[in-house]
Amino acid sequence: MNYELIDSYPFYVEPFHVDFRGNIFLSILGNHMLNAAGNHSQKRGWGIATLNESQHTWVLSRLSIEMNEMPRQYEHCEVRTWVESVKRYFTKRNFSIHRADGTPLGYARSVWAMIDLETRKPCDLLTLFDGDILNYVTPEDHKEPYSSEGGWKEAVCPIEGHGRFRFRDPEHLRTIDTHYSDVDINGHVNSMKYIEHILDLFPRERFEKQQVRRIEIAYKAESYFGDRLSFYSQPVSNDETDIEVRKQTRSEADGTTSQEQGETPSSPASERNEEVVCQAKVCFKD
Amino acid sequence: MNYELIDSYPFYVEPFHVDFRGNIFLSILGNHMLNAAGNHSQKRGWGIATLNESQHTWVLSRLSIEMNEMPRQYEHCEVRTWVESVKRYFTKRNFSIHRADGTPLGYARSVWAMIDLETRKPCDLLTLFDGDILNYVTPEDHKEPYSSEGGWKEAVCPIEGHGRFRFRDPEHLRTIDTHYSDVDINGHVNSMKYIEHILDLFPRERFEKQQVRRIEIAYKAESYFGDRLSFYSQPVSNDETDIEVRKQTRSEADGTTSQEQGETPSSPASERNEEVVCQAKVCFKD
Repeated sequence: MNYELIDSYPFYVEPFHVDFRGNIFLSILGNHMLNAAGNHSQKRGWGIATLNESQHTWVLSRLSIEMNEMPRQYEHCEVRTWVESVKRYFTKRNFSIHRADGTPLGYARSVWAMIDLETRKPCDLLTLFDGDILNYVTPEDHKEPYSSEGGWKEAVCPIEGHGRFRFRDPEHLRTIDTHYSDVDINGHVNSMKYIEHILDLFPRERFEKQQVRRIEIAYKAESYFGDRLSFYSQPVSNDETDIEVRKQTRSEADGTTSQEQGETPSSPASERNEEVVCQAKVCFKD
Repeated sequence: MNYELIDSYPFYVEPFHVDFRGNIFLSILGNHMLNAAGNHSQKRGWGIATLNESQHTWVLSRLSIEMNEMPRQYEHCEVRTWVESVKRYFTKRNFSIHRADGTPLGYARSVWAMIDLETRKPCDLLTLFDGDILNYVTPEDHKEPYSSEGGWKEAVCPIEGHGRFRFRDPEHLRTIDTHYSDVDINGHVNSMKYIEHILDLFPRERFEKQQVRRIEIAYKAESYFGDRLSFYSQPVSNDETDIEVRKQTRSEADGTTSQEQGETPSSPASERNEEVVCQAKVCFKD
């Protein structure tokens, strides 16, 4: 039995990584998860640097984070991560977030595709590197020793899977241009920046009384430095809101954007020359 | 002689902490500096947690960062910091930024005031804790052993001091509302968020051809979640731009902001019911 399926990524909650209530920003927590995932992959020969040599890279497709409690300013915490399953075009990676003493604070699920850097098309994960990735699939009841303090790390992720989104006439809330600080080394708007922009749609009162219990995101298309993003909101209940993020596609004829062409924000994305970039569900709790 | 005047704060340049050219974001680098300063103060009994007990806190007044070379993705680097001088109402703290092998990449200067948390007024640094802070003032020629790899750490900061700003009819570039992600645990817009917003004023082409050589900021007033910030630009030369950030002050009579009252962006801050929040100089180099 392989005892090295679950990785631990320790992090410290820095003073400027928390919101006005002292809870870590979800975008910062998500960034720690991406780092944990990157390290886990790299150690097993599936890191981005290795993949780039064969013209491949990972693309994050879905992410759902559900927190019972948020890491607080000055806390020492860790992200654990493992591979739940691998299919031809997708692999599922889970996470759990813990205090340094092992107390679980929350969990996350993610779905990743592998693409060819030239064609941008998905690759068959089961044949790449002779199916080596199957060596890292972690059975649901798997646990392994937690070396530094005794105890066990368990591949447990007791949160719901990713849901489906159905938008019917969502309300236009905000349109922003994307800038220098939004984009990563690939020139794409960083996946965690979408989380920031989405949470920035909610007013101060919401965060004073409540905190985010769960956020789900489906990444649909890349956006780039200078793209104009529009945010649409659809309330599901008092505590639950679906958000659709669309980018304006430029008209090939004259270079104007769909908004400059005077289309109304309430028409569906396809009619407005808009493309859906991502969809999200934000659930608050008291 | 005290050999422990200069602290080292190591950091790793994470994949999502770099811009589209692979250079660390200045706001992230600045955040590492604030952490280094916080640790340095805390170890000497002048950390924020200790100060809060006696109703005091540090306020960053000026920051100038000058980089010869930017830390790159995946690099291991460190910030060194020490106290240059202490006067009654201000203390100057310097920084140097190095690769793990000790190569200097850049330097920074900062000015801090101590305020009383209740009155928000500056305190006399020379009498607080019986002038203990004077024990940490570091002579300009001071050097101390660098334990882990041999060699020396030197209190050297060969960059210009903070300049003065004079704005005459600057151009209004952008007005933004501040949101959840902008504010820190004190409810203030985070000092590094201003750097993000200021660099976001420059177009993609600028960052494709050039990189920031020096940024200077003078923090004048706090702004808060929901404040509306306006950014004004005054070119000094091709490579140098001064930026003034103002917040709209609400009219006590009717609750409308100065912009809603129809004032023109080109009038001076004082006439427009605007308050200057910070002023900055951004210098690019090829």
